[in-house]
Amino acid sequence: MSHPHPELSDPPAPPEGGLRIVALGGLGEIGRNMTVFEYGGRLLVVDCGVLFPETEQPGIDLILPDFEYIRERLDDIEAVILTHGHEDHIGAVPYLLRERRDVPLVGSRLTLALIEAKLTEHRIKPVTDVVVEGERRTFGPFDIEFLAVNHSIPDALALAIRTPAGLVLHTGDFKMDQLPLDGRLTDLPGFARLGAEGIDLLMSDSTNAEVAGFVTSERNIGPVVDEVFRTAQERLIVACFASHIHRVQQVLDAAVANGRKVCFVGRSMVRNMGVARELGYLTVPDDIMVDQKDLDDIPGDRLVLVCTGSQGEPMSALSRMANRDHSIRITERDTVMLASSLIPGNENAVNRVINGLTRWGARVIHKGNALVHVSGHASAGELLYVLNVTKPANFVPIHGEWRHLRAHAKLAALTGVPDENIVIAEDGVVVDLVDGRAKIVGAVPAGYVYVDGLSVGEVTETSLKDRRILGEEGFVSIVVGIDSTSGKLVAGPEVHARGAGIMNEDFEEIIERIEGVLRDAAGDGVNDVHQIGQLIRRTVGKWVSDNYRRRPMIVPVVVEV
Amino acid sequence: MSHPHPELSDPPAPPEGGLRIVALGGLGEIGRNMTVFEYGGRLLVVDCGVLFPETEQPGIDLILPDFEYIRERLDDIEAVILTHGHEDHIGAVPYLLRERRDVPLVGSRLTLALIEAKLTEHRIKPVTDVVVEGERRTFGPFDIEFLAVNHSIPDALALAIRTPAGLVLHTGDFKMDQLPLDGRLTDLPGFARLGAEGIDLLMSDSTNAEVAGFVTSERNIGPVVDEVFRTAQERLIVACFASHIHRVQQVLDAAVANGRKVCFVGRSMVRNMGVARELGYLTVPDDIMVDQKDLDDIPGDRLVLVCTGSQGEPMSALSRMANRDHSIRITERDTVMLASSLIPGNENAVNRVINGLTRWGARVIHKGNALVHVSGHASAGELLYVLNVTKPANFVPIHGEWRHLRAHAKLAALTGVPDENIVIAEDGVVVDLVDGRAKIVGAVPAGYVYVDGLSVGEVTETSLKDRRILGEEGFVSIVVGIDSTSGKLVAGPEVHARGAGIMNEDFEEIIERIEGVLRDAAGDGVNDVHQIGQLIRRTVGKWVSDNYRRRPMIVPVVVEV
Repeated sequence: MSHPHPELSDPPAPPEGGLRIVALGGLGEIGRNMTVFEYGGRLLVVDCGVLFPETEQPGIDLILPDFEYIRERLDDIEAVILTHGHEDHIGAVPYLLRERRDVPLVGSRLTLALIEAKLTEHRIKPVTDVVVEGERRTFGPFDIEFLAVNHSIPDALALAIRTPAGLVLHTGDFKMDQLPLDGRLTDLPGFARLGAEGIDLLMSDSTNAEVAGFVTSERNIGPVVDEVFRTAQERLIVACFASHIHRVQQVLDAAVANGRKVCFVGRSMVRNMGVARELGYLTVPDDIMVDQKDLDDIPGDRLVLVCTGSQGEPMSALSRMANRDHSIRITERDTVMLASSLIPGNENAVNRVINGLTRWGARVIHKGNALVHVSGHASAGELLYVLNVTKPANFVPIHGEWRHLRAHAKLAALTGVPDENIVIAEDGVVVDLVDGRAKIVGAVPAGYVYVDGLSVGEVTETSLKDRRILGEEGFVSIVVGIDSTSGKLVAGPEVHARGAGIMNEDFEEIIERIEGVLRDAAGDGVNDVHQIGQLIRRTVGKWVSDNYRRRPMIVPVVVEV
Repeated sequence: MSHPHPELSDPPAPPEGGLRIVALGGLGEIGRNMTVFEYGGRLLVVDCGVLFPETEQPGIDLILPDFEYIRERLDDIEAVILTHGHEDHIGAVPYLLRERRDVPLVGSRLTLALIEAKLTEHRIKPVTDVVVEGERRTFGPFDIEFLAVNHSIPDALALAIRTPAGLVLHTGDFKMDQLPLDGRLTDLPGFARLGAEGIDLLMSDSTNAEVAGFVTSERNIGPVVDEVFRTAQERLIVACFASHIHRVQQVLDAAVANGRKVCFVGRSMVRNMGVARELGYLTVPDDIMVDQKDLDDIPGDRLVLVCTGSQGEPMSALSRMANRDHSIRITERDTVMLASSLIPGNENAVNRVINGLTRWGARVIHKGNALVHVSGHASAGELLYVLNVTKPANFVPIHGEWRHLRAHAKLAALTGVPDENIVIAEDGVVVDLVDGRAKIVGAVPAGYVYVDGLSVGEVTETSLKDRRILGEEGFVSIVVGIDSTSGKLVAGPEVHARGAGIMNEDFEEIIERIEGVLRDAAGDGVNDVHQIGQLIRRTVGKWVSDNYRRRPMIVPVVVEV
């Protein structure tokens, strides 16, 4: 099993007749999936998603893949293929299109409709190219066959990528629900046919590689949802992902069966369900929908709200209900169902919502106490099926953190993929497929690009480090005016502290210290602004550390007067 | 079922012959457990613990109960009874003793030894009073019987508190391991005897009230640990809580059986295991321990390190190993076992450690993939046993967040406690037990008291709000010197920004804006420092919002020259 070493250097030129593969995101993390395939100087991009920030990236809205690797070669891109419509696969497309407007976007009907709706908000009209499973299409030197896969959003695709370097099967995100609600199975016979043809490289979804067994069918949630509807005393509020059309469909079906009207709450829920309904992916019975403004006309026991906020997003309607900061005031007669996964990192936020709702007496149903969610990603049992029918010569686990990639690599080894043909890569690692063998040959930069408000890439690791210090410790700023020749103090010191928890009565002592130090410095003939700033920083930093055992950011401002 | 309303007001004077109960922590949260019982003007305190901060409390070290409710009556305290030695039950004792040195601390031998070791670090020598299960003792008007309970630390106690107002059973933290390693069972016959006598109020541990069934015996971890020892290729590193003496004992036993030497790593691990060994709670075979400085002399496959850091604490040895920032360099021949729970809120940190270790190739065993941890708190099945044998007239669920308290209340109702006798309280809520009936009668302040570095209670919610803004958005500070009579700009503006992600080339435009605004203001005769500061704040805030869609803290400093 080979895996990247931190010492990887720049890769050599792409080998003649070889296929080069570089993930700019999605390997070593769950999110911002984007893989660049290169053959004969031409590029194929698979997915272009965002990663959601953790607490270590305070204030950040989104994290993008770094396009630097392809920035000079945007015109070499034959197509950007989007495997499905989740944000971690399409969310960075608007940012890529800002750099080249006419990159062709290729994907299934629903996937393209969702990205188009999103791009409208960015005022971009993209060049699109709809494909369906079973189709085989050529984009420059890349011959692509599209295969149906089942996932937690309809219309997802896997890709068989053929070049003279060999056949690559990229699964996209998938699971293998054997009784899917829309009857669209993961195309295991297709996988088997490709396996028979000879797959040189399998790239397969690792998200649930650590989870033994098989994912329960989405269908099995139906009776549970129905039971919740039947037993809900008054209002029923269901939170789930705004892209989970089948989940919402099950809620709509239960609403019909139980005589409740439905109201969609949340911008992305309204937008996506609009798209899904228009394209026929969501069946909405006549007269069942009500508008949010008409809610007061419907008795609580005749109503279900379907909303976003299942991950505890603080500004969501659900979080605000939990905090009694919403016009809907939760009571002990309300039922709330979180029909969603709990994305790692959101545990605290979701727990806060559950506790808040519970505090007001609501009955809260969630995946911890009822079968109201199943994963969208194949578990180890399903992954073994895929490995066994595809019999790949080489294997690169994708879509996972290190723990998931390693677990998937182990599964591959168990099915007989030779150890030396299993390659664990991470973002930026360059893998070449040459002469039927996948090998790590180097690495390119693939760091985080932060979106914060309107800026993209301007907030750097340094800004984040500053934010982390400021957020933990606050700051103390000290302003002094000095005479530019004598270095003598002529104004201030003025001390300001925010978030540092320093008592106002201590400011006087800090000021005295600074005055003393500056007096000595002026006596020694020090009049350099920078040097005086350093003196102040050191003096105040030491004082705070000695007296408070803390290290706020010290910001001296020395003004020459 | 009664529960507190946000509008609760000051309680009336304690009723004649009644028992007043006020939790200053532990209700509505897991942590900082502390309950004050009052009878005839005298006070009994049960536990005095800390709460660990979440990301919403940046930079905070610990959270204490607010002692304000008893501050004026510290001399009325007959005793502080500590049910067991966990931080969330004893961690705030040093802070209480700062306010009154000679409060008698009452508890089992191990509990008091652990708090004494801790107090030595605070240079406090406490007044202590060791009790054992089966004993019955009087503290002023409080007649207390101590009962053995089984928990994830040895020597834990439940309390039967008798006053003329009735009999209260306070379980402390407990579970009901039927084959505990030390043979010390939770005293169910004692509970039954009290039940027969007539329990007026049961206060019982709610932590796992949402979890169906029964906690697996600690004993069952042994074979799994042994298997890990047998299959570990070279170095073995075990992380667990520094107070989990039985867990460490199982690791020591496996080390003996497999011919490995043991090294304790981490200050609290070394300290607690020293105490436990000295008192005979930990059996350490001869010659098995090695000192950290001698590690290099022992081959990896003859060694096990037992360390702290199981919750992903960033400065712990384990986190530093995961980041390759430690002298122990993890390789694919190493095995790491996290033999610990995953405390809610630590998921990200622990995930980061697992991914880091996995990245370097280590085999990582944790509760997600092997039976290497069992909870210390009774599950619903066990809680039902306690409710059924104690048959309490009134019930107050304790030790839990809202979701846990409500789940426990439901269990009580199922066992036949009348709805109107089940009282869900939260921190600060005043419950009186009068004439055999527990009732909410008001509330007292019970907010968070923050420990940050050396300061206790000086960091306020305002400081934290500042930190959250600074941590998310950074700050922009603008220093101007103005002529005190004309209001004209005579120095600056100097603009500094940290963590705000504002490009340096934009500073010029900000400066121009400020100059313009101040020119206009001086023209209008404005020379008030405060007013000029406000003008600057508004101007810069608007500029940043318009150009960056962000809201950093704006800090204007106006110096009169």
